[in-house]
Amino acid sequence: MKPVLGTCYYPEHWPEEIWVEDARRMAELGLTWVRIGEFAWSRIEPSEGKFDWEWLDRAVDVLANAGLKIIMGTPTATPPKWILNKHPDMIALDEKGIPRGFGSRRHYCFSHQGYRRECVRIVEKMAERYGSHPAVQSWQTDNEYGCHDTTISYSQSAREEFRNWLSQKYQSPDALNKAWGNVFWSMEYSEFSDVDLPNLTVTEPNPSHVMDFRRFASDQLVSFNKLQADVIRKYSDAPLVHNYMGKTTDFDHFDVGADLDIASWDSYPIGFLEMISSENDDFKAEYLQQGDPDFQAFHHDLYRSVGNGRLWVMEQQPGPVNWASYNPSPLDGMVRLWSLEAIAHGAESVNYFRWRQAPFAQEQMHAGLLRPDSVEARGMIEARQVKADLTDIGEVTQLQAPVALIFDYPSQWATDTQPQGANFYYFNLVYQAYQVLRSLGVDVDVISKEQDLDGYKIAIVPSLFTLDDAFKARLNNFDGAVLAGPRFNSKTADFQIPANLAPDIDHLDLKVSRLETLREGIQRDLLTGGYAHSWIEELETSEIVLERTSDGNAVLVQKDNWYYLGAWLDEDAYKRIISSILESAGVSYEELPRGVRKRETKEHTFVWNYSTQSHEYRGQTIASTDVIWFKK
Amino acid sequence: MKPVLGTCYYPEHWPEEIWVEDARRMAELGLTWVRIGEFAWSRIEPSEGKFDWEWLDRAVDVLANAGLKIIMGTPTATPPKWILNKHPDMIALDEKGIPRGFGSRRHYCFSHQGYRRECVRIVEKMAERYGSHPAVQSWQTDNEYGCHDTTISYSQSAREEFRNWLSQKYQSPDALNKAWGNVFWSMEYSEFSDVDLPNLTVTEPNPSHVMDFRRFASDQLVSFNKLQADVIRKYSDAPLVHNYMGKTTDFDHFDVGADLDIASWDSYPIGFLEMISSENDDFKAEYLQQGDPDFQAFHHDLYRSVGNGRLWVMEQQPGPVNWASYNPSPLDGMVRLWSLEAIAHGAESVNYFRWRQAPFAQEQMHAGLLRPDSVEARGMIEARQVKADLTDIGEVTQLQAPVALIFDYPSQWATDTQPQGANFYYFNLVYQAYQVLRSLGVDVDVISKEQDLDGYKIAIVPSLFTLDDAFKARLNNFDGAVLAGPRFNSKTADFQIPANLAPDIDHLDLKVSRLETLREGIQRDLLTGGYAHSWIEELETSEIVLERTSDGNAVLVQKDNWYYLGAWLDEDAYKRIISSILESAGVSYEELPRGVRKRETKEHTFVWNYSTQSHEYRGQTIASTDVIWFKK
Amino acid sequence: MKPVLGTCYYPEHWPEEIWVEDARRMAELGLTWVRIGEFAWSRIEPSEGKFDWEWLDRAVDVLANAGLKIIMGTPTATPPKWILNKHPDMIALDEKGIPRGFGSRRHYCFSHQGYRRECVRIVEKMAERYGSHPAVQSWQTDNEYGCHDTTISYSQSAREEFRNWLSQKYQSPDALNKAWGNVFWSMEYSEFSDVDLPNLTVTEPNPSHVMDFRRFASDQLVSFNKLQADVIRKYSDAPLVHNYMGKTTDFDHFDVGADLDIASWDSYPIGFLEMISSENDDFKAEYLQQGDPDFQAFHHDLYRSVGNGRLWVMEQQPGPVNWASYNPSPLDGMVRLWSLEAIAHGAESVNYFRWRQAPFAQEQMHAGLLRPDSVEARGMIEARQVKADLTDIGEVTQLQAPVALIFDYPSQWATDTQPQGANFYYFNLVYQAYQVLRSLGVDVDVISKEQDLDGYKIAIVPSLFTLDDAFKARLNNFDGAVLAGPRFNSKTADFQIPANLAPDIDHLDLKVSRLETLREGIQRDLLTGGYAHSWIEELETSEIVLERTSDGNAVLVQKDNWYYLGAWLDEDAYKRIISSILESAGVSYEELPRGVRKRETKEHTFVWNYSTQSHEYRGQTIASTDVIWFKK
Repeated sequence: MKPVLGTCYYPEHWPEEIWVEDARRMAELGLTWVRIGEFAWSRIEPSEGKFDWEWLDRAVDVLANAGLKIIMGTPTATPPKWILNKHPDMIALDEKGIPRGFGSRRHYCFSHQGYRRECVRIVEKMAERYGSHPAVQSWQTDNEYGCHDTTISYSQSAREEFRNWLSQKYQSPDALNKAWGNVFWSMEYSEFSDVDLPNLTVTEPNPSHVMDFRRFASDQLVSFNKLQADVIRKYSDAPLVHNYMGKTTDFDHFDVGADLDIASWDSYPIGFLEMISSENDDFKAEYLQQGDPDFQAFHHDLYRSVGNGRLWVMEQQPGPVNWASYNPSPLDGMVRLWSLEAIAHGAESVNYFRWRQAPFAQEQMHAGLLRPDSVEARGMIEARQVKADLTDIGEVTQLQAPVALIFDYPSQWATDTQPQGANFYYFNLVYQAYQVLRSLGVDVDVISKEQDLDGYKIAIVPSLFTLDDAFKARLNNFDGAVLAGPRFNSKTADFQIPANLAPDIDHLDLKVSRLETLREGIQRDLLTGGYAHSWIEELETSEIVLERTSDGNAVLVQKDNWYYLGAWLDEDAYKRIISSILESAGVSYEELPRGVRKRETKEHTFVWNYSTQSHEYRGQTIASTDVIWFKK
Repeated sequence: MKPVLGTCYYPEHWPEEIWVEDARRMAELGLTWVRIGEFAWSRIEPSEGKFDWEWLDRAVDVLANAGLKIIMGTPTATPPKWILNKHPDMIALDEKGIPRGFGSRRHYCFSHQGYRRECVRIVEKMAERYGSHPAVQSWQTDNEYGCHDTTISYSQSAREEFRNWLSQKYQSPDALNKAWGNVFWSMEYSEFSDVDLPNLTVTEPNPSHVMDFRRFASDQLVSFNKLQADVIRKYSDAPLVHNYMGKTTDFDHFDVGADLDIASWDSYPIGFLEMISSENDDFKAEYLQQGDPDFQAFHHDLYRSVGNGRLWVMEQQPGPVNWASYNPSPLDGMVRLWSLEAIAHGAESVNYFRWRQAPFAQEQMHAGLLRPDSVEARGMIEARQVKADLTDIGEVTQLQAPVALIFDYPSQWATDTQPQGANFYYFNLVYQAYQVLRSLGVDVDVISKEQDLDGYKIAIVPSLFTLDDAFKARLNNFDGAVLAGPRFNSKTADFQIPANLAPDIDHLDLKVSRLETLREGIQRDLLTGGYAHSWIEELETSEIVLERTSDGNAVLVQKDNWYYLGAWLDEDAYKRIISSILESAGVSYEELPRGVRKRETKEHTFVWNYSTQSHEYRGQTIASTDVIWFKK
Repeated sequence: MKPVLGTCYYPEHWPEEIWVEDARRMAELGLTWVRIGEFAWSRIEPSEGKFDWEWLDRAVDVLANAGLKIIMGTPTATPPKWILNKHPDMIALDEKGIPRGFGSRRHYCFSHQGYRRECVRIVEKMAERYGSHPAVQSWQTDNEYGCHDTTISYSQSAREEFRNWLSQKYQSPDALNKAWGNVFWSMEYSEFSDVDLPNLTVTEPNPSHVMDFRRFASDQLVSFNKLQADVIRKYSDAPLVHNYMGKTTDFDHFDVGADLDIASWDSYPIGFLEMISSENDDFKAEYLQQGDPDFQAFHHDLYRSVGNGRLWVMEQQPGPVNWASYNPSPLDGMVRLWSLEAIAHGAESVNYFRWRQAPFAQEQMHAGLLRPDSVEARGMIEARQVKADLTDIGEVTQLQAPVALIFDYPSQWATDTQPQGANFYYFNLVYQAYQVLRSLGVDVDVISKEQDLDGYKIAIVPSLFTLDDAFKARLNNFDGAVLAGPRFNSKTADFQIPANLAPDIDHLDLKVSRLETLREGIQRDLLTGGYAHSWIEELETSEIVLERTSDGNAVLVQKDNWYYLGAWLDEDAYKRIISSILESAGVSYEELPRGVRKRETKEHTFVWNYSTQSHEYRGQTIASTDVIWFKK
């Protein structure tokens, strides 16, 4: 596959007079893809049933005539005001029951049947009109599902649909009462209509109640997306894509991905570092203008799995953004670095967001490839470099990584629901494994527990809500090394403690007899260096103990190809363990210089440098922000 | 009195098949008491008027047959969903007016008349059925009043009842206007129905308004409890008890205690240290797995007064809990230490919560004496040790302490209402006195201002909202040393500044002419060491000044047996003053090793060690977490 | 002008028997002015249409008979409960839609037409009765507009009036859609009735939407005040005044000032330092009992402009207050210092708040000149000293300052609306310029962008939302030095990026080609010392570059008398630049000792010392808290 570039364009934001020139400049830059349409509902259908397609027809033609390929976005993330006037209860309510109203975007509840009908209607109209247009070669559903905490809604619609969902799952209130243990505080229900949403309770709600609500919320989003996908497929054979966000865990991306053809995401390395990174202030200062060196790669590797091997970057940060608390400029070279890194990780296209900085409304301070005055901005210069690089690079073919790292959305919901220690954050535990492996120069596939383990040398499952039979069988049959834990299979699917206690692994004589959680700054040293913190299990076992705390508690247990880790470790200890497993499994690794990362593809070894210093790699100097590749 | 042990059991959580075995194991462990029933409403009355007593009859019989004594809990902390369906407005509203709904527990407003009737009904049914059962030898009303901030509600019911309460108190709106000084900002009312609850005001409400609301809220809880007590007493002569929580100050426990026979409380040393302690992070790290060495004893000494000398621990932490932000394991030995400490302080029974860890619902991560798989947990092992210790200890008889420390709930409400300095927290001021006395090995009775002072050598009143005539007379007649202040008698009962200014003590020529409050980190050194902080009064006096700030302001004033302290002091300065008063009053004291505490009973001197180091005491080594006793 | 003193008195708070004695003591102290009436609505009109004027007539006469002059306050900040009963929807809603109810003060929405009518009615009644009373020589409208965040309301009334305001401004929804760029996220409106208030949106609302709402909110307050002013002028020729608060920026004080005759403010130096200062903890500790040495002067210099040269202090802190989180006592001497500082800055009268400390209601812990027991408090002693000082001082006449510093309320709203960096706070940027100039002994006039620049040697415009044609012409014609930026003219009036990009200054070839914002602790060193932080522009220019970052970016650009500063600087760098411009402009300056400030009037040089150390100034020792003056 030869990677290409693209951009996001909003013809409705600009006078029609400049469309042709814009298209010409895009083509001249060497772009392949242009995404349009995604927020244009009020221009397509200014009032109910009155459509204005002409401008969009012309925009499509202008772009097509310049040889560009179009990704057509459905505009359902921004229902116009007249739709809200028609369906005033279509908005979401927040956890306190306060409405999340009109005036920005994503102002809808996934459970509102009236709004679902409006979406089917507008998507069908669009698909009907452009489904067979030769330039429209891809469709994007909605925009950034879950962004601005919009997966979960506490509306009346959500309540009704949740009751329906429960009645289908449990069939009888008694079954629900039993699964949830509602006898506990006289919480037993006589009818499904007794069940409220799990917000606004006096103290914490039943975790089984919350977990089912989280599953329901994800399912609602998935079915909302599927409605659109089904409609588009009636009119088009083009691949379907959605643009996911970073560190968004409220819905199961694998489930959405199953209904689409490609996974794409919106990569804003600097905004993400400021707003959603869990790293400390020193780290944030070190990577202020570059972003976290593993954050983008993690999402490339995750979403490549979500897309069953097909990955795009739908929106690539091209300069300073507007939405973080602080918005530094990228270092010169970083736009190129992020682009080539994405390509090394399998992105078929990297699309810059956006073509030209808008002078108005919410994102007026978000850089584009062009400044508002149409002069080239820094991002454009680097995009041109990338285009040249791609010519040199040629084909890029992904290889299976030696390590599979399991990412399981329900495990995030489960630990959100019942952290037990306030700093237990599932994503961070998985991410630590990723960071350690990447700093050792090891490639990683981040996969779901439903995906195939064949061909991997190591499978790492840092935590797992519940071990279902299928995954258990797959792990039992796997002949590579398995590193499981901590907090592995700690609950049944009903969110109860397993009868045999966790982790209940067939291969190991092992029980978590007690566990404790520790506040920041408290640590338990390991005999061989490093320490455990945050989450520490007391392990009852007859297996070999490879690591212990200095007071003798087992921390790492092994039997044959199975390893069980009973605590959250600091980076040093974790790296020691991972290195040793890599060694046993015959996976080569090397400690990379700080901020340097590498990736193997079929044709190249790519190496890049997120740090502000130059580093040596294989006898070659790699400057700050540079990317180099060795052809094979 | 020979102390005993018990546990909390929820037969409705377990298959009936294992009840007999559970009872057998309880008896074998040597337990005396078993509390049941408290959350079982949905099993006793699954729908309105349909009762199912059979299972509970059988559970009572199984326990009785094993020789266990039953504490029967009324289930009113967990009204089932059908009661809420019947009375949708029975829930409390929070300060923002947001409902606190169904899905956990304590989802009711104390002012709702309909819910009060439901409670009388269910309690009467239970009392009727079990009031004369020979094994039911105690009754617990409701569960943990005030827990989860449930004393105060801003519901419509609360508003109506508050207006009634005010009309009874003031008889006329004019009297209320005058008492509150409502002329101040044109806040005068023409009718009692003009008066709203004191939430949602633009800026701070009138403190007199808030203070009356706080008194009302406490009174509503007290009368709610009395309703139940009155009903039970019609059917049973067994002693009545309630299980209070730690550092809960929103209602007057002495008022509730007046309607019951025994005070008990739920002692969770590690959870309390994490969640409600005001100590700093170093302290929390030092006592992470032990709890604050004074916190439990303070509550034993306070609730023994609330119970008019009769104290139980209804729930004793047996291992890690689930409800704190972080939940460490107790050090080995701590469950025994807490148990014996409670007994040294007068607990007649220490009941472990809970018999077996539940695998489901909100408290599934809360340890029990048994693990969910019925294997003995650490707590069970230590309970068995305690049982053996009790045999050696034999009789335990409380002695009057040399020092009476006054704890006054309305003084907490008053300083909540008008802190004047954001870090003025009444509980902490009283608690500091307690800590200093205990670190000097001095026993303390924590009593109300209504209780008798006869026999004490020293009375300490660290702060007092208002000095009523009765307490004034009692203090004036007291021949021991009195240490009053700071912030003593600073307001009239109407929450106005006294005409003669504070502290208005008959015995002292003394006025607080001005006062200031200081942010964290600001201190005023004392001439003789240590410093004042947070709250500093300017004292106008002709009495002897014992302590001054380095700029000459009087801080400690004395005449005869009266001492007045005009500032919040650091521990060193406060300890110097207390030591000197102890000396004058002929009370012996000794600086105990860090973390070591002792208590004198008629038969023994008990000594225990909360620290992680061994210490010497009277030539004997006392290991970390150990308890020793010297027989007299 | 010979400055005088006054006080604030609430006769309705005290028994009528002591009014005569109070008036006698005020006269004896040498006070000129007494403000009354402002919160007395419930006593003037206890129920609808039933007036009780007799007590107020007698109070006016008692004060008049003692030779005192009266400022009569309208009582509209405290509508009585019966008015709320009549207009339940007159209250404001907060940003979450939660009502801000009765029970304190300022419980009204400026947009409620019914409440406006009530205000006109009560003000007319008062003006009719006292408008021609010889002792009533000034009128105060309402009290502390905007205090407790009351400028902005999200009520239904506000929504309706906002829609009216928009329809008047834009005439058509299409014009509004275009101005706001509503096409951006399909936010286009068909009717003005489609427009909601910009709260409760899912993510940030359109900044143009917010900015118009902020302008509307200010306009509503201005027209509310004008209603009262117009009514009073029908009955009285006395000057009208309002008492503003410190650092209150939600409404345009210049607009309110245009309808009144004098600007006054309520000066609480210690409360302000604790509650609204942006300085760090070390600074707060240093000036704990004195207040920020520039904060009062800044407001004197600003409000003197708001009052078109006429300034009063309506409420002067006389001792500890009650409303800050912590409330220290002023150092002895500070009440005098604050009073004389105000006078040096042009205050015609300094009025102490309040005469006697009230023993009841919300402000019972707020010191007065008298204690609650009528004994003189510290403030009274110092007021008496000030009275003596004034005799020595005699006439005080203001001079035009050499430097004009522009303060523009809409620029604050614009950066509130779109900070881009979370720590960008417009007030602080202007205030930094003021602090630096004052520490260099330079007098400053803080003026609006509408005011005349004639006669100034330097004009400083630290940031400016938008440069309108009139101000542009005035700056272009100004022959002194102009220091503009950073963030100068960064938006059009519609809140869009200017077509030529910022700063679009006729005189300079300069474009902000990109900008970035940086989190706390990140700094970019300048070549010549100091550093840029928080907000850094990338400047494209052919002009002379006077300052650069160490990586070469232009920071300060000059051409002739124009200077453009492209970053927020630390105090050192900023002082270096200011000093150099002062030198070029021929303005003399001197580095004053820490905490010492001076001011030139026609007749004197005043010097005072906010620090706790003595300092030398012109060979004379000036003690901590002292004020000295050199006659010319």
